[in-house]
Amino acid sequence: MTDFKKHIHDVPDFPKKGIVFKDITPLLSDAKIFAAAVDRLSEPFVGKGVQVVAGIESRGFLLATPIAYRLGAGVVPIRKKGKLPRAVKSASYALEYGTDSIEAHADAFPRGTKVLLVDDVLATGGTAAAAVELIEAIGGSLVGTAFLIELGFLSGRQKLPGRDVRSLVSY
Amino acid sequence: MTDFKKHIHDVPDFPKKGIVFKDITPLLSDAKIFAAAVDRLSEPFVGKGVQVVAGIESRGFLLATPIAYRLGAGVVPIRKKGKLPRAVKSASYALEYGTDSIEAHADAFPRGTKVLLVDDVLATGGTAAAAVELIEAIGGSLVGTAFLIELGFLSGRQKLPGRDVRSLVSY
Repeated sequence: MTDFKKHIHDVPDFPKKGIVFKDITPLLSDAKIFAAAVDRLSEPFVGKGVQVVAGIESRGFLLATPIAYRLGAGVVPIRKKGKLPRAVKSASYALEYGTDSIEAHADAFPRGTKVLLVDDVLATGGTAAAAVELIEAIGGSLVGTAFLIELGFLSGRQKLPGRDVRSLVSY
Repeated sequence: MTDFKKHIHDVPDFPKKGIVFKDITPLLSDAKIFAAAVDRLSEPFVGKGVQVVAGIESRGFLLATPIAYRLGAGVVPIRKKGKLPRAVKSASYALEYGTDSIEAHADAFPRGTKVLLVDDVLATGGTAAAAVELIEAIGGSLVGTAFLIELGFLSGRQKLPGRDVRSLVSY
C-alpha cells in the first residue's frame, strides 16, 4: 500500500497564521506516487460511465485532468469569477467573512451528462457543495466526488449528503 | 487527422476589448479530442527521459498533468506569486504595463532533473521564457516545451532560442 501521507507535507501558518497547509507538491512531483494517486482516485469510477470530470481551479485542475484521461472522459474547468469567456452559471459559498463564487460555462456539457467532481482537498465542503450545485444547475448527473485529501475534522462530507464521496487520505 | 481547431472557439473582446480569446474548453470537454490532444502533445517526448512536467498556472495545469501521467513523469506547478507554501524561486516577465512574476518551489526537483514545460498558449513568449529561466535556476535540464496553441503572429518562439518548441495548432 502506498503511503501517500508521507508525500504530503504540513506547512504551518500558510496562507495565514494558525492554518496548517497541506502541501501536495511532493506527491505530485514523484512520478510513481503521482500515478498511483491518479489510479487510486479513478478506480471507484471505472465502468461507471463518467463522461466529464469537473475540476475546481486551480489545484483541482492538477488532479481532474489526469483522472479524466485515465477514465476516458473529458474535463470541465470550474473557475473563479470572471475567468471564463462565455456565458456562465455561478454558485456561491461562505467564507470566514463574506462569500465567494465559482463559475462554469452554462453550456459546459449536455443535459444528463455523467459528471465526476474532483478537487485536491475536502475541507468545510463549502466549495464542493457549490460545485455540485453548479454541475446540477447545468443539467449534469453527478456520479460522485473524489478528493486527494479529506480534512475529516471539518466535516465537509456533511455538506454532500447522499453523494458518493471518496478521498485518498484523511486527517 | 483530428481537426483540433474546430474545438477551439474564438471569443472576441475577452478578457478585454480588442483581444480575441482562444477558448479551449470545447476541446477539453470532448473526451476523444482531449485524449488525442494529450497523446499528440506527449508524442515527441516519449522515450526522452522526461522526469517532471512543469505546468504554468492555471490553464497550463489542465494539460501538464495528463501529459505527465501519459509520460510516466511527475508534475511541478509553476504558480502566480504567493501561492506556494515553501521557499520559492521567482522569475519576472513584462506585461503591457509593468511586470509580473511566477514562482516554483526552490526544491521542486533535484539538480539535473529532465523537465518538459507545458502551457496552453504560446503568445509573446514572455511567460514561457520566465518559466524556462525558473526551471534552469532550480537546476532542471529542459528537454523541451509543448503548447496546445501557438499564436505565430506574436513570435513567442523567438524568446525560446535553441529550445525544442512544439505546438499542436498554430494561428
